[in-house]
Order: sequence, then structure tokens, then C-alpha cells
Amino acid sequence: MTVGLDVRDETADWAARVGARLEAWLQRRLPADAPGGLAEAMRYAVLDGGKRLRPLLVLAAWEAAGGAPDAGEEAPVWAVAGAVELIHAYSLVHDDLPCMDDDVLRRGKPTAHVRFGEALALLAGDALQALAFEWLVTPPWAQQAPARALRLARELALAAGCHGMAGGQAIDLAAVGRTLDQAALEDMHRRKTGALLRASVRMGALAAGLDEERLTALDAYGGALGLAFQVMDDVLDATADTATLGKTAGKDAAAGKPTFVSLLGVDGARAYAEALLQEALAALQGLEADTARLAGLARWVVRRRH
Amino acid sequence: MTVGLDVRDETADWAARVGARLEAWLQRRLPADAPGGLAEAMRYAVLDGGKRLRPLLVLAAWEAAGGAPDAGEEAPVWAVAGAVELIHAYSLVHDDLPCMDDDVLRRGKPTAHVRFGEALALLAGDALQALAFEWLVTPPWAQQAPARALRLARELALAAGCHGMAGGQAIDLAAVGRTLDQAALEDMHRRKTGALLRASVRMGALAAGLDEERLTALDAYGGALGLAFQVMDDVLDATADTATLGKTAGKDAAAGKPTFVSLLGVDGARAYAEALLQEALAALQGLEADTARLAGLARWVVRRRH
Repeated sequence: MTVGLDVRDETADWAARVGARLEAWLQRRLPADAPGGLAEAMRYAVLDGGKRLRPLLVLAAWEAAGGAPDAGEEAPVWAVAGAVELIHAYSLVHDDLPCMDDDVLRRGKPTAHVRFGEALALLAGDALQALAFEWLVTPPWAQQAPARALRLARELALAAGCHGMAGGQAIDLAAVGRTLDQAALEDMHRRKTGALLRASVRMGALAAGLDEERLTALDAYGGALGLAFQVMDDVLDATADTATLGKTAGKDAAAGKPTFVSLLGVDGARAYAEALLQEALAALQGLEADTARLAGLARWVVRRRH
Repeated sequence: MTVGLDVRDETADWAARVGARLEAWLQRRLPADAPGGLAEAMRYAVLDGGKRLRPLLVLAAWEAAGGAPDAGEEAPVWAVAGAVELIHAYSLVHDDLPCMDDDVLRRGKPTAHVRFGEALALLAGDALQALAFEWLVTPPWAQQAPARALRLARELALAAGCHGMAGGQAIDLAAVGRTLDQAALEDMHRRKTGALLRASVRMGALAAGLDEERLTALDAYGGALGLAFQVMDDVLDATADTATLGKTAGKDAAAGKPTFVSLLGVDGARAYAEALLQEALAALQGLEADTARLAGLARWVVRRRH
């Protein structure tokens, strides 16, 4: 299992604590009664697994922007944290389908289409995307600050859509077996995984009402962290084993996909991730806020083992 | 080709006129520059085809609720009309995939996965769903009436999600080769196609600011029309040829799916659709509004040939 962070420090303790609250929140809010087996497939795709990095970024950015650390379950931060995780979960379900990466293992469990069949997995992914937007625009808090809720929904739509995550996946498809230079590889990853990671940081801060100037500084953190995450994903894909990862190791190389490791080598990729970490930490300096958790998450991203 | 209505009357003339405006609006607003071939696949799935029934319902309900008939392209009605059509288009792309209905013909053209491959078709559908929500929550009009924009996004999320369209499709999957009684069949269709048709009517009226009381009356119209649409779909699937439909005819029977025709026979299904039409028209009576176009669309739904 790959739940939670794999280091023991203050960030990990905090992540375990808020991660448990998130899990309980998701348990309560995910549908239990959707027809045709859909509820079961949706819950399987979301619950009981995953590092929850995106919701942790939402929660850390919320706190850094002045949001209450112990916000009640009706506070916007939970809807935002849940929504970004739903988008992430749906993208994994669709990514694992035979027509995409054709993978059988995810978060240490059989992938959704192995468990429920391709058609129901496809629909579960579709329904998770709709549910993410439902959570963002649903009363009570959305009605109290409708302009803010709209902004959040727009951030999520842009991050998930054709210029963000889906666009990055389309570039990825088109790139199999081809050579990408570093700029093209970075453009792909800034969309494919970076857009939603960055949106998680932005949305957590926006939910707490952060002003535009500090949002720009925070955004630089999110951008560097997002890219560092992908660089380390490539390093881990090339160096860790399947049991540790909870997903199939070595598959990028096997699929002939361009990676940061194929471009820079393992040591070069590690050094690049470390440089991006320093860039992310530097962006936090000017914020005049408690950014210890954001810094801790960035360190975890670069030093994790899965 | 199956663009537009197939009768020549006042409703058809109006539909041709506003349909041309919708087409131009979609042409301008659909992305032209999304990477990896995604823009081309998204545009293919949406443009140049389809009856546009859902956006026509949005436009007719908007006018019945007092919206300006010649609203400029920044008016909410166009974003709403476009958004419901995007949800419909994405659902067709995913529905046609080999793991679902495995169909090769749609709107008289090869289906998206035949034209672009399964993986890109899957992503195009995903990106269309995100774009539908982006359109609903994007300035300028959304900022002028943020609570209303939020309500519209919520209506769309509920109609598309696990209790609506996706839920109906999941029931449909689970029902292949089984017998459903009429109540179960209607429940499936009220979700699978009815939810989005009904939401189109509701959202058009809500965009124009209709009060809750009249919305309830209009909703009865939308519910009856949505079911009548599906009953007639089953009749046409059993009686029309592929060239007329622009999609593969007879496939429900071939797939062993329960239909209104298998339950009631062709004549019985036609009579049921006619009764639902009368129910829809009766619901319009109490509205004290110009509902001629809504009535015309309901008549077309039941008397169409494709």
C-alpha cells in the first residue's frame, strides 16, 4: 500500500492527521447509492489508496493563506481538496484503460477496469469528473461566496481540460516512440501532471482568499513543485520496484516514452529535481506566511521513495 | 447528414436560424490550438452534425422565460446551450468506444475513435466535459450573476453525473441480456437521456431568471419530453434505416437490450410517445408565457423521422 507519505517528520505527521480527516470526508461524500454498480466503482477508484498529494497541497496552501487549520467539514477547503483528488482519480482510471496505458496495478490494487470491466471503469471516471465540479459549486459555502466558488471551478476546469491535463496526455500519446527535447518534455509534463498540482496550490490559497500578488508567488512554487514531481516520477520508474511503487515499474522505458531519465540520466534527473526543489522553496520566501508545510511537501516530493 | 429538424414548419425555420448562430458560436469557442491533436478531435466530435435538440431546448426555454430572442454572443444562453451540447457530444464519443457500444457511425460520419483512435477519442471526451464546465463558469456573464452561474453549473453536474446520465448508462450496461419491466426501463432512460434533456430546459429558463414555481411546471414538460424522446428513439431504431438515422439502426435489438418496442411493440410505443407529448403540452398550458417553440420542439421529438 502506498497511502500517505513515506518519511517520518513533522510534515508527515501533519499529512497523516489531515489525510485521515480527508479520507473520512471522502467516505461520507462519495455516493453510496449510484445505480448500475457505479457507486462501487467510483469509491474503489478514490478510496483507500494514493499519496493524496494534491489534497495535501490544497490544505497546506489554505493554511498558508490564512485558512483555519481545523476547518469544519462544510468549509470550502474540503470540497476543493476532494474535487482535485476526484479529477486525479478519474484521470488514473482512464489512463489505465487498455486503449491508453493498459495497466493492471494501481495503488497496490488491481486497476478499476480489471476489477469492474472497461465500460464501467470508463463511466466511473466520467462520473468522478462531474462530481468534482458538483462539489465545487454546491451550497452552503458556494452560495456564501459565489464569485470565489466560480473562480475555483474555472481553475479546475482549465487545469483538467484540453490545455491542461487532457492536453498533456494527448501530447504523451503522440510522443510514444519519438524523441522530445527537454523543452517539449517539460511542456508535456507541465500540462499532464503539473497543471493539476499547480491548480491544487492555487485553489487552496484562493479558497482562503489570498490576494493576487501573493498568489503569483505561490504559483511559482506550484509550477516548480509540479515539474519536480514528474522528474522524480521518472527517476522512480527507472529505479524502484513494482512492490514499492504500488504500480508497474519500468513501464515508461518499456513503452519507448521519452523521460527525464532518458534525457538526463538518473543522476542528472535527480540533480534537476533538487534544483527545482530549491526554486520552489525560494518562491515561498517572499510570502510572509507560514509556509512550513508547503516547504515540507516540496521536500517530500523530491526525496520520496514511491 | 442529420443536421437540424426534418420537418418544415415555423419551429423548423426558427431552429434553422438559431441553429446556424449556435454553429457559428461553437466554431468560434471550441479550441483550435489544444495540443496533441486534441483540438481537432474535440471539434470533430461537436461540429457539423447532430440535431442540436438540447441547445434548441435551452434557447426555447430561455425565450419562454423572458430571455431576449436575439441575445448577443456574450449572453448566458449561448454558454448554456454550448455546454449542454458539449456534454452530449462527449457522452456520444465515449458511448461509441469499443468497450461500450462499439459503433463506427455517428451523425453520418465515422465515430471519433474510428477517425482518431481510441485513446485520443477518450481524451477528447474527457476534455469536452471539462470545457462544458469552463464555459458555464467563465466571465463576463458568470461574474455579473455568480449565484446564477453556480446554480447552472450544479444543474449540469447533477444531470451528467452518477445519478443522471452516467448512472443511466451504468444501468444500461448492467441490463444487457436481462429483462427490465417498464418502471425500470423508464428509470434508466430518465437518467441516461432524460436528465440532460430536462436539464437543458431547466437551465435555459434559469439563465433567464425564471422563478421556482414556473420552473416546476416547465420541469414537468422537460421530464415528459425526455421520456418521449427515448421512446421514439427505440421506435426509430426498430423501424428506420441506417442512412436515415445517420447511426447504426437496429443495434439495440441486436445487442439484446430491453427497449420500449420490445416491451410495448412498435404501435404501443408510438401511442405511448403521443401520450407523453400530450403530457408535455399540458404542462406548458399554465405557464403564462410564449411556449410555442417549446411545444413545437415536443411535437418534433415525437413525429421526427430520425
